[in-house]
Amino acid sequence: MDDDVIRLVLVRHGQSTWNLENRFSGWTDVPLTGQGLEEAEAAGDLMAAEGFVFDVVHTSVLRRAVNTANAALDRMDLHWIPVRRSWRLNERHYGALQGLNKKETAARHGLEQVFLWRRSYDVPPPPLDPDDPRHPRFDPRYASIPAEEIPGAECLADVVARTVPYWCEGIVPDLRAGRRVLVAAHGNSLRALLKYLKGIGDEEIARLNIPTGIPLVVELDRELRHTADRYLGDRAAAEAAAAEVAAQAG
Amino acid sequence: MDDDVIRLVLVRHGQSTWNLENRFSGWTDVPLTGQGLEEAEAAGDLMAAEGFVFDVVHTSVLRRAVNTANAALDRMDLHWIPVRRSWRLNERHYGALQGLNKKETAARHGLEQVFLWRRSYDVPPPPLDPDDPRHPRFDPRYASIPAEEIPGAECLADVVARTVPYWCEGIVPDLRAGRRVLVAAHGNSLRALLKYLKGIGDEEIARLNIPTGIPLVVELDRELRHTADRYLGDRAAAEAAAAEVAAQAG
Repeated sequence: MDDDVIRLVLVRHGQSTWNLENRFSGWTDVPLTGQGLEEAEAAGDLMAAEGFVFDVVHTSVLRRAVNTANAALDRMDLHWIPVRRSWRLNERHYGALQGLNKKETAARHGLEQVFLWRRSYDVPPPPLDPDDPRHPRFDPRYASIPAEEIPGAECLADVVARTVPYWCEGIVPDLRAGRRVLVAAHGNSLRALLKYLKGIGDEEIARLNIPTGIPLVVELDRELRHTADRYLGDRAAAEAAAAEVAAQAG
Repeated sequence: MDDDVIRLVLVRHGQSTWNLENRFSGWTDVPLTGQGLEEAEAAGDLMAAEGFVFDVVHTSVLRRAVNTANAALDRMDLHWIPVRRSWRLNERHYGALQGLNKKETAARHGLEQVFLWRRSYDVPPPPLDPDDPRHPRFDPRYASIPAEEIPGAECLADVVARTVPYWCEGIVPDLRAGRRVLVAAHGNSLRALLKYLKGIGDEEIARLNIPTGIPLVVELDRELRHTADRYLGDRAAAEAAAAEVAAQAG
Protein backbone atom coordinates (compact mmCIF):
# COMPACT_ATOMS: atom_id res chain seq x y z
CA MET A 1 0.00 0.00 0.00
CA ASP A 2 1.08 3.58 -0.71
CA ASP A 3 2.56 5.13 2.44
CA ASP A 4 1.26 8.60 1.59
CA VAL A 5 -2.31 7.39 1.78
CA ILE A 6 -4.10 7.34 5.13
CA ARG A 7 -6.83 4.76 5.27
CA LEU A 8 -9.66 4.39 7.71
CA VAL A 9 -12.50 1.93 7.59
CA LEU A 10 -16.14 2.68 8.38
CA VAL A 11 -18.64 -0.08 9.04
CA ARG A 12 -22.36 0.24 9.61
CA HIS A 13 -23.79 -2.24 12.13
CA GLY A 14 -25.56 -5.33 10.85
CA GLN A 15 -29.27 -6.09 11.11
CA SER A 16 -30.91 -5.23 14.44
CA THR A 17 -34.16 -6.62 15.81
CA TRP A 18 -35.93 -3.36 14.90
CA ASN A 19 -34.46 -3.31 11.38
CA LEU A 20 -36.12 -6.71 11.05
CA GLU A 21 -39.42 -5.38 12.41
CA ASN A 22 -39.11 -2.26 10.23
CA ARG A 23 -39.34 0.08 13.23
CA PHE A 24 -37.60 3.43 13.70
CA SER A 25 -34.68 2.73 16.09
CA GLY A 26 -32.72 5.95 16.54
CA TRP A 27 -31.22 5.97 20.01
CA THR A 28 -33.27 2.98 21.16
CA ASP A 29 -30.64 0.45 22.21
CA VAL A 30 -31.87 -2.62 20.32
CA PRO A 31 -29.63 -5.68 19.89
CA LEU A 32 -28.32 -7.26 16.70
CA THR A 33 -30.21 -10.23 15.30
CA GLY A 34 -28.36 -13.49 14.65
CA GLN A 35 -28.04 -12.34 11.05
CA GLY A 36 -26.67 -8.98 12.22
CA LEU A 37 -24.00 -10.76 14.26
CA GLU A 38 -23.10 -12.89 11.24
CA GLU A 39 -22.79 -9.73 9.13
CA ALA A 40 -20.36 -8.33 11.70
CA GLU A 41 -18.29 -11.53 11.70
CA ALA A 42 -18.26 -11.59 7.90
CA ALA A 43 -17.07 -7.96 7.90
CA GLY A 44 -14.23 -8.98 10.22
CA ASP A 45 -13.30 -11.92 8.00
CA LEU A 46 -13.32 -9.69 4.93
CA MET A 47 -11.11 -7.03 6.52
CA ALA A 48 -8.68 -9.70 7.76
CA ALA A 49 -8.59 -11.35 4.32
CA GLU A 50 -7.77 -7.99 2.73
CA GLY A 51 -4.89 -7.46 5.14
CA PHE A 52 -6.43 -4.71 7.25
CA VAL A 53 -5.13 -4.20 10.77
CA PHE A 54 -6.34 -1.57 13.25
CA ASP A 55 -4.71 0.13 16.20
CA VAL A 56 -7.89 1.59 17.65
CA VAL A 57 -11.66 1.31 17.23
CA HIS A 58 -14.28 4.03 17.65
CA THR A 59 -17.92 3.12 18.28
CA SER A 60 -21.16 4.78 19.28
CA VAL A 61 -22.63 3.96 22.70
CA LEU A 62 -25.38 1.79 21.20
CA ARG A 63 -25.01 -1.96 21.47
CA ARG A 64 -25.65 -2.71 17.82
CA ALA A 65 -22.46 -0.77 16.94
CA VAL A 66 -20.52 -1.90 20.04
CA ASN A 67 -21.27 -5.55 19.33
CA THR A 68 -20.57 -5.19 15.61
CA ALA A 69 -17.10 -3.88 16.52
CA ASN A 70 -16.58 -6.59 19.14
CA ALA A 71 -17.54 -9.41 16.79
CA ALA A 72 -15.58 -8.10 13.79
CA LEU A 73 -12.44 -7.45 15.85
CA ASP A 74 -12.62 -10.84 17.54
CA ARG A 75 -12.57 -12.47 14.09
CA MET A 76 -9.55 -10.34 13.15
CA ASP A 77 -7.67 -11.31 16.34
CA LEU A 78 -7.84 -7.63 17.30
CA HIS A 79 -10.23 -7.89 20.28
CA TRP A 80 -7.41 -6.42 22.41
CA ILE A 81 -7.01 -3.01 20.74
CA PRO A 82 -7.97 0.23 22.52
CA VAL A 83 -11.64 1.19 22.34
CA ARG A 84 -13.11 4.69 22.23
CA ARG A 85 -16.84 5.38 22.37
CA SER A 86 -18.93 8.47 21.90
CA TRP A 87 -22.62 9.32 21.76
CA ARG A 88 -21.58 11.59 18.86
CA LEU A 89 -21.36 8.49 16.67
CA ASN A 90 -24.92 7.43 17.58
CA GLU A 91 -27.65 6.96 15.03
CA ARG A 92 -29.86 9.98 14.39
CA HIS A 93 -32.35 10.48 17.23
CA TYR A 94 -35.71 9.74 15.69
CA GLY A 95 -37.77 11.56 18.31
CA ALA A 96 -41.34 10.44 18.87
CA LEU A 97 -41.12 8.13 15.87
CA GLN A 98 -38.78 5.77 17.73
CA GLY A 99 -40.43 2.41 18.18
CA LEU A 100 -43.06 3.00 15.50
CA ASN A 101 -43.36 0.70 12.53
CA LYS A 102 -42.40 2.56 9.36
CA LYS A 103 -45.40 1.37 7.38
CA GLU A 104 -47.87 2.25 10.12
CA THR A 105 -46.26 5.65 10.43
CA ALA A 106 -46.71 6.19 6.69
CA ALA A 107 -50.36 5.14 6.95
CA ARG A 108 -50.93 7.61 9.78
CA HIS A 109 -48.92 10.62 8.63
CA GLY A 110 -48.82 10.09 4.88
CA LEU A 111 -45.94 8.82 2.77
CA GLU A 112 -44.83 12.31 1.83
CA GLN A 113 -44.46 13.46 5.44
CA VAL A 114 -42.55 10.34 6.41
CA PHE A 115 -40.30 10.73 3.38
CA LEU A 116 -39.60 14.30 4.48
CA TRP A 117 -38.72 13.18 8.02
CA ARG A 118 -36.51 10.44 6.67
CA ARG A 119 -34.77 12.15 3.82
CA SER A 120 -34.87 15.92 4.27
CA TYR A 121 -31.67 17.49 5.54
CA ASP A 122 -33.10 19.88 8.09
CA VAL A 123 -36.63 18.79 9.07
CA PRO A 124 -36.51 16.89 12.38
CA PRO A 125 -39.25 14.41 13.28
CA PRO A 126 -41.59 15.30 16.16
CA PRO A 127 -39.48 15.33 19.36
CA LEU A 128 -39.82 13.04 22.33
CA ASP A 129 -41.60 14.69 25.23
CA PRO A 130 -38.90 15.80 27.72
CA ASP A 131 -40.74 13.82 30.39
CA ASP A 132 -40.97 10.67 28.31
CA PRO A 133 -38.97 8.04 30.25
CA ARG A 134 -37.25 7.16 26.98
CA HIS A 135 -35.77 10.66 26.74
CA PRO A 136 -31.95 10.42 26.75
CA ARG A 137 -31.74 12.88 29.63
CA PHE A 138 -32.77 9.99 31.91
CA ASP A 139 -30.06 7.66 30.57
CA PRO A 140 -26.78 7.62 32.57
CA ARG A 141 -24.71 7.17 29.42
CA TYR A 142 -25.70 10.68 28.33
CA ALA A 143 -25.15 12.28 31.74
CA SER A 144 -22.09 14.15 30.48
CA ILE A 145 -24.01 15.95 27.70
CA PRO A 146 -25.08 19.49 28.73
CA ALA A 147 -28.87 19.60 29.18
CA GLU A 148 -29.36 22.04 26.30
CA GLU A 149 -27.50 19.73 23.92
CA ILE A 150 -29.30 16.44 24.63
CA PRO A 151 -31.52 15.83 21.63
CA GLY A 152 -35.18 14.80 21.77
CA ALA A 153 -35.14 14.50 17.96
CA GLU A 154 -32.58 15.18 15.24
CA CYS A 155 -32.52 15.99 11.56
CA LEU A 156 -29.45 15.01 9.55
CA ALA A 157 -28.07 18.54 9.91
CA ASP A 158 -28.11 18.03 13.69
CA VAL A 159 -26.23 14.76 13.29
CA VAL A 160 -23.59 16.48 11.16
CA ALA A 161 -23.28 19.21 13.79
CA ARG A 162 -22.52 16.73 16.59
CA THR A 163 -20.53 14.16 14.57
CA VAL A 164 -18.00 16.51 12.95
CA PRO A 165 -16.60 17.70 16.32
CA TYR A 166 -15.93 14.05 17.15
CA TRP A 167 -14.14 13.60 13.85
CA CYS A 168 -11.91 16.57 14.68
CA GLU A 169 -11.32 15.90 18.37
CA GLY A 170 -11.75 12.11 18.60
CA ILE A 171 -10.67 10.52 15.33
CA VAL A 172 -8.22 12.98 13.73
CA PRO A 173 -5.77 12.80 16.69
CA ASP A 174 -5.57 9.02 16.18
CA LEU A 175 -4.98 9.41 12.44
CA ARG A 176 -2.34 12.11 13.03
CA ALA A 177 -0.59 9.77 15.47
CA GLY A 178 -0.38 7.19 12.69
CA ARG A 179 -2.97 4.89 14.20
CA ARG A 180 -5.05 2.74 11.89
CA VAL A 181 -8.69 3.46 12.70
CA LEU A 182 -11.90 1.44 12.47
CA VAL A 183 -15.23 3.20 13.06
CA ALA A 184 -18.32 1.09 13.82
CA ALA A 185 -21.44 3.22 13.75
CA HIS A 186 -24.81 3.83 12.07
CA GLY A 187 -26.38 4.79 8.76
CA ASN A 188 -26.83 8.45 9.60
CA SER A 189 -23.69 9.11 11.66
CA LEU A 190 -21.60 7.58 8.87
CA ARG A 191 -23.57 9.56 6.29
CA ALA A 192 -22.82 12.71 8.31
CA LEU A 193 -19.10 11.89 8.40
CA LEU A 194 -19.00 11.21 4.67
CA LYS A 195 -20.93 14.39 3.93
CA TYR A 196 -18.25 16.34 5.75
CA LEU A 197 -15.27 14.42 4.35
CA LYS A 198 -16.50 14.42 0.73
CA GLY A 199 -18.22 17.82 0.76
CA ILE A 200 -21.53 16.32 -0.32
CA GLY A 201 -24.40 18.81 -0.70
CA ASP A 202 -27.45 18.98 1.59
CA GLU A 203 -29.77 17.65 -1.12
CA GLU A 204 -27.43 15.05 -2.51
CA ILE A 205 -26.64 13.41 0.83
CA ALA A 206 -30.15 11.90 1.03
CA ARG A 207 -29.23 9.67 -1.89
CA LEU A 208 -26.12 8.25 -0.20
CA ASN A 209 -27.09 4.83 1.11
CA ILE A 210 -24.57 2.89 3.19
CA PRO A 211 -25.08 -0.88 3.25
CA THR A 212 -24.92 -2.73 6.59
CA GLY A 213 -21.90 -4.83 7.50
CA ILE A 214 -19.82 -3.99 4.42
CA PRO A 215 -16.57 -2.20 5.32
CA LEU A 216 -16.05 1.10 3.51
CA VAL A 217 -12.39 2.00 3.03
CA VAL A 218 -11.86 5.76 3.00
CA GLU A 219 -8.57 7.10 1.67
CA LEU A 220 -7.23 10.47 2.82
CA ASP A 221 -4.15 12.46 1.86
CA ARG A 222 -1.62 13.79 4.39
CA GLU A 223 -3.88 16.76 5.10
CA LEU A 224 -6.70 14.28 5.83
CA ARG A 225 -8.63 15.31 2.74
CA HIS A 226 -10.79 12.62 1.19
CA THR A 227 -9.29 11.25 -2.02
CA ALA A 228 -11.19 8.00 -2.64
CA ASP A 229 -13.39 5.35 -1.08
CA ARG A 230 -14.47 1.83 -1.90
CA TYR A 231 -16.44 -1.01 -0.35
CA LEU A 232 -14.54 -4.18 0.44
CA GLY A 233 -15.56 -7.42 -1.16
CA ASP A 234 -17.95 -8.11 -3.97
CA ARG A 235 -19.06 -4.88 -5.67
CA ALA A 236 -22.41 -6.30 -6.76
CA ALA A 237 -23.16 -7.38 -3.18
CA ALA A 238 -22.41 -3.88 -1.86
CA GLU A 239 -24.62 -2.26 -4.49
CA ALA A 240 -27.49 -4.65 -3.87
CA ALA A 241 -27.23 -4.02 -0.12
CA ALA A 242 -27.21 -0.25 -0.65
CA ALA A 243 -30.27 -0.50 -2.90
CA GLU A 244 -32.06 -2.52 -0.23
CA VAL A 245 -31.21 0.17 2.34
CA ALA A 246 -32.49 2.86 -0.04
CA ALA A 247 -35.76 0.97 -0.47
CA GLN A 248 -36.53 0.42 3.19
CA ALA A 249 -34.29 2.08 5.77
CA GLY A 250 -34.47 5.46 7.43
CA MET B 1 -24.49 1.13 50.59
CA ASP B 2 -22.02 2.91 52.89
CA ASP B 3 -20.49 5.88 51.11
CA ASP B 4 -17.16 5.51 52.90
CA VAL B 5 -16.65 2.10 51.36
CA ILE B 6 -15.07 1.83 47.92
CA ARG B 7 -16.12 -1.29 46.07
CA LEU B 8 -14.60 -2.91 43.05
CA VAL B 9 -15.57 -6.17 41.47
CA LEU B 10 -13.18 -8.79 40.11
CA VAL B 11 -14.35 -11.54 37.81
CA ARG B 12 -12.35 -14.46 36.46
CA HIS B 13 -13.25 -15.46 32.91
CA GLY B 14 -15.51 -18.45 32.34
CA GLN B 15 -14.55 -21.80 30.87
CA SER B 16 -12.23 -21.67 27.84
CA THR B 17 -11.71 -24.39 25.26
CA TRP B 18 -8.39 -25.27 26.88
CA ASN B 19 -9.88 -25.37 30.38
CA LEU B 20 -12.20 -27.96 28.92
CA GLU B 21 -9.30 -29.89 27.36
CA ASN B 22 -7.30 -29.52 30.59
CA ARG B 23 -4.37 -27.85 28.80
CA PHE B 24 -2.09 -25.11 30.14
CA SER B 25 -3.31 -21.87 28.51
CA GLY B 26 -1.22 -19.00 29.89
CA TRP B 27 -0.93 -16.34 27.20
CA THR B 28 -2.37 -18.59 24.49
CA ASP B 29 -5.40 -16.67 23.27
CA VAL B 30 -8.04 -19.39 23.41
CA PRO B 31 -11.76 -18.56 23.19
CA LEU B 32 -14.49 -19.17 25.74
CA THR B 33 -16.64 -22.26 25.32
CA GLY B 34 -20.42 -21.90 25.10
CA GLN B 35 -20.50 -22.67 28.81
CA GLY B 36 -17.87 -20.00 29.44
CA LEU B 37 -20.00 -17.44 27.64
CA GLU B 38 -23.01 -18.48 29.71
CA GLU B 39 -20.95 -18.08 32.90
CA ALA B 40 -20.10 -14.53 31.80
CA GLU B 41 -23.74 -13.71 31.09
CA ALA B 42 -24.80 -15.19 34.43
CA ALA B 43 -22.15 -13.04 36.15
CA GLY B 44 -23.63 -9.98 34.45
CA ASP B 45 -27.16 -10.94 35.49
CA LEU B 46 -26.01 -11.48 39.06
CA MET B 47 -24.22 -8.12 39.28
CA ALA B 48 -27.25 -6.35 37.78
CA ALA B 49 -29.61 -8.11 40.18
CA GLU B 50 -27.42 -6.98 43.11
CA GLY B 51 -27.58 -3.39 41.93
CA PHE B 52 -23.99 -3.06 40.75
CA VAL B 53 -23.17 -0.40 38.17
CA PHE B 54 -19.75 0.32 36.69
CA ASP B 55 -18.18 3.42 35.17
CA VAL B 56 -15.20 1.66 33.63
CA VAL B 57 -13.96 -1.87 32.92
CA HIS B 58 -10.39 -3.14 32.93
CA THR B 59 -9.47 -6.33 31.07
CA SER B 60 -6.40 -8.25 30.01
CA VAL B 61 -5.60 -8.44 26.29
CA LEU B 62 -6.71 -12.08 26.05
CA ARG B 63 -10.07 -12.80 24.43
CA ARG B 64 -11.38 -15.01 27.21
CA ALA B 65 -11.27 -12.01 29.56
CA VAL B 66 -12.27 -9.45 26.90
CA ASN B 67 -15.30 -11.49 25.89
CA THR B 68 -16.26 -12.22 29.51
CA ALA B 69 -16.36 -8.47 30.12
CA ASN B 70 -18.25 -7.81 26.88
CA ALA B 71 -20.90 -10.44 27.60
CA ALA B 72 -21.37 -9.50 31.26
CA LEU B 73 -21.58 -5.76 30.53
CA ASP B 74 -24.02 -6.28 27.67
CA ARG B 75 -26.34 -8.08 30.08
CA MET B 76 -26.01 -5.17 32.53
CA ASP B 77 -26.84 -2.61 29.83
CA LEU B 78 -23.32 -1.26 30.37
CA HIS B 79 -21.77 -2.25 27.00
CA TRP B 80 -21.12 1.48 26.44
CA ILE B 81 -18.76 2.21 29.35
CA PRO B 82 -15.08 3.07 28.78
CA VAL B 83 -12.75 0.12 28.37
CA ARG B 84 -9.11 -0.14 29.45
CA ARG B 85 -6.92 -3.09 28.63
CA SER B 86 -3.46 -4.16 29.71
CA TRP B 87 -1.21 -7.17 29.21
CA ARG B 88 -0.42 -6.69 32.91
CA LEU B 89 -3.78 -8.31 33.70
CA ASN B 90 -2.96 -11.37 31.55
CA GLU B 91 -2.89 -14.88 32.92
CA ARG B 92 0.51 -16.13 34.10
CA HIS B 93 2.72 -17.03 31.13
CA TYR B 94 3.09 -20.78 31.33
CA GLY B 95 6.22 -20.97 29.17
CA ALA B 96 6.93 -24.21 27.34
CA LEU B 97 4.04 -25.89 29.15
CA GLN B 98 1.48 -23.85 27.19
CA GLY B 99 -0.64 -26.14 25.06
CA LEU B 100 0.31 -29.29 26.96
CA ASN B 101 -2.34 -31.38 28.63
CA LYS B 102 -1.95 -31.23 32.40
CA LYS B 103 -2.25 -34.98 32.92
CA GLU B 104 0.26 -35.78 30.20
CA THR B 105 2.63 -33.23 31.67
CA ALA B 106 2.31 -34.90 35.06
CA ALA B 107 2.99 -38.29 33.49
CA ARG B 108 6.11 -36.94 31.80
CA HIS B 109 7.60 -34.73 34.51
CA GLY B 110 6.12 -36.26 37.62
CA LEU B 111 3.27 -34.96 39.76
CA GLU B 112 5.61 -33.31 42.21
CA GLN B 113 7.39 -31.25 39.57
CA VAL B 114 4.10 -30.15 38.00
CA PHE B 115 2.71 -29.25 41.41
CA LEU B 116 5.81 -27.13 42.00
CA TRP B 117 5.36 -25.30 38.67
CA ARG B 118 1.70 -24.74 39.38
CA ARG B 119 1.70 -23.83 43.01
CA SER B 120 5.14 -22.61 44.05
CA TYR B 121 5.50 -18.86 44.36
CA ASP B 122 8.84 -18.38 42.67
CA VAL B 123 9.64 -21.38 40.47
CA PRO B 124 8.79 -20.57 36.84
CA PRO B 125 8.03 -23.36 34.36
CA PRO B 126 10.55 -23.99 31.55
CA PRO B 127 10.50 -20.91 29.28
CA LEU B 128 9.42 -20.76 25.68
CA ASP B 129 12.37 -20.68 23.31
CA PRO B 130 12.84 -17.02 22.24
CA ASP B 131 12.61 -18.19 18.62
CA ASP B 132 9.41 -20.14 19.18
CA PRO B 133 6.79 -18.46 16.96
CA ARG B 134 4.45 -18.50 19.97
CA HIS B 135 6.82 -16.24 21.93
CA PRO B 136 5.00 -13.00 22.81
CA ARG B 137 7.80 -10.92 21.27
CA PHE B 138 6.31 -11.82 17.86
CA ASP B 139 2.78 -10.70 18.83
CA PRO B 140 1.89 -7.08 17.92
CA ARG B 141 -0.21 -6.65 21.06
CA TYR B 142 2.99 -6.87 23.12
CA ALA B 143 5.05 -4.57 20.88
CA SER B 144 5.06 -1.82 23.51
CA ILE B 145 6.69 -4.02 26.18
CA PRO B 146 10.49 -3.49 26.38
CA ALA B 147 12.30 -6.55 25.04
CA GLU B 148 13.89 -7.34 28.41
CA GLU B 149 10.47 -7.38 30.09
CA ILE B 150 8.55 -9.67 27.72
CA PRO B 151 8.19 -12.96 29.55
CA GLY B 152 8.87 -16.39 28.07
CA ALA B 153 7.60 -17.93 31.33
CA GLU B 154 6.41 -16.57 34.66
CA CYS B 155 6.13 -17.70 38.25
CA LEU B 156 3.45 -16.11 40.42
CA ALA B 157 6.04 -13.69 41.86
CA ASP B 158 6.59 -12.42 38.30
CA VAL B 159 2.85 -11.94 37.87
CA VAL B 160 2.68 -9.95 41.11
CA ALA B 161 5.61 -7.81 39.91
CA ARG B 162 3.84 -6.82 36.69
CA THR B 163 0.26 -6.68 37.99
CA VAL B 164 0.81 -4.39 40.99
CA PRO B 165 2.12 -1.49 38.84
CA TYR B 166 -1.10 -1.71 36.84
CA TRP B 167 -3.12 -1.58 40.04
CA CYS B 168 -1.26 1.59 41.05
CA GLU B 169 -1.14 3.34 37.69
CA GLY B 170 -4.19 1.91 35.89
CA ILE B 171 -6.87 1.08 38.44
CA VAL B 172 -6.19 3.33 41.45
CA PRO B 173 -6.61 6.55 39.41
CA ASP B 174 -10.10 5.37 38.42
CA LEU B 175 -10.99 4.54 42.04
CA ARG B 176 -9.60 7.88 43.25
CA ALA B 177 -11.74 9.64 40.64
CA GLY B 178 -14.80 7.96 42.14
CA ARG B 179 -15.33 5.59 39.23
CA ARG B 180 -16.90 2.23 39.91
CA VAL B 181 -14.51 -0.40 38.53
CA LEU B 182 -14.98 -3.90 37.11
CA VAL B 183 -11.89 -6.00 36.41
CA ALA B 184 -12.22 -9.05 34.12
CA ALA B 185 -9.08 -11.12 34.21
CA HIS B 186 -7.56 -14.51 35.06
CA GLY B 187 -6.93 -16.89 37.93
CA ASN B 188 -3.34 -15.83 38.51
CA SER B 189 -3.55 -12.11 37.77
CA LEU B 190 -6.49 -11.84 40.18
CA ARG B 191 -4.62 -13.95 42.70
CA ALA B 192 -1.67 -11.56 42.35
CA LEU B 193 -3.91 -8.54 42.92
CA LEU B 194 -5.52 -10.11 45.97
CA LYS B 195 -2.13 -11.11 47.37
CA TYR B 196 -1.11 -7.45 47.20
CA LEU B 197 -4.40 -6.02 48.47
CA LYS B 198 -4.81 -8.50 51.34
CA GLY B 199 -1.14 -8.92 52.19
CA ILE B 200 -1.33 -12.69 51.71
CA GLY B 201 1.96 -14.56 52.26
CA ASP B 202 3.99 -16.27 49.55
CA GLU B 203 3.10 -19.75 50.82
CA GLU B 204 -0.51 -19.05 51.63
CA ILE B 205 -1.39 -17.55 48.24
CA ALA B 206 -1.14 -20.98 46.58
CA ARG B 207 -4.24 -22.02 48.52
CA LEU B 208 -6.36 -19.11 47.28
CA ASN B 209 -8.58 -20.47 44.53
CA ILE B 210 -10.78 -18.08 42.59
CA PRO B 211 -13.83 -19.64 40.94
CA THR B 212 -14.64 -18.76 37.32
CA GLY B 213 -17.50 -16.43 36.47
CA ILE B 214 -18.44 -15.57 40.06
CA PRO B 215 -18.03 -11.85 40.80
CA LEU B 216 -15.84 -11.10 43.81
CA VAL B 217 -16.75 -7.83 45.54
CA VAL B 218 -13.71 -6.23 47.18
CA GLU B 219 -14.28 -3.48 49.73
CA LEU B 220 -11.63 -0.84 50.37
CA ASP B 221 -11.43 2.06 52.77
CA ARG B 222 -10.70 5.64 51.72
CA GLU B 223 -6.97 4.88 51.67
CA LEU B 224 -7.75 1.95 49.34
CA ARG B 225 -6.83 -0.61 51.97
CA HIS B 226 -8.67 -3.93 51.74
CA THR B 227 -11.33 -4.29 54.43
CA ALA B 228 -13.50 -7.17 53.21
CA ASP B 229 -14.48 -9.28 50.24
CA ARG B 230 -17.30 -11.62 49.30
CA TYR B 231 -18.52 -13.59 46.32
CA LEU B 232 -21.86 -12.60 44.87
CA GLY B 233 -24.66 -15.11 44.75
CA ASP B 234 -25.00 -18.48 46.35
CA ARG B 235 -22.16 -19.11 48.82
CA ALA B 236 -22.24 -22.88 48.35
CA ALA B 237 -21.95 -22.47 44.58
CA ALA B 238 -18.87 -20.24 44.98
CA GLU B 239 -17.24 -22.68 47.36
CA ALA B 240 -17.94 -25.65 45.11
CA ALA B 241 -16.54 -23.77 42.13
CA ALA B 242 -13.40 -22.81 44.07
CA ALA B 243 -12.93 -26.41 45.17
CA GLU B 244 -13.21 -27.53 41.55
CA VAL B 245 -10.58 -24.98 40.55
CA ALA B 246 -8.33 -26.18 43.38
CA ALA B 247 -8.68 -29.77 42.18
CA GLN B 248 -7.88 -29.18 38.53
CA ALA B 249 -6.73 -25.74 37.46
CA GLY B 250 -3.29 -24.17 37.26
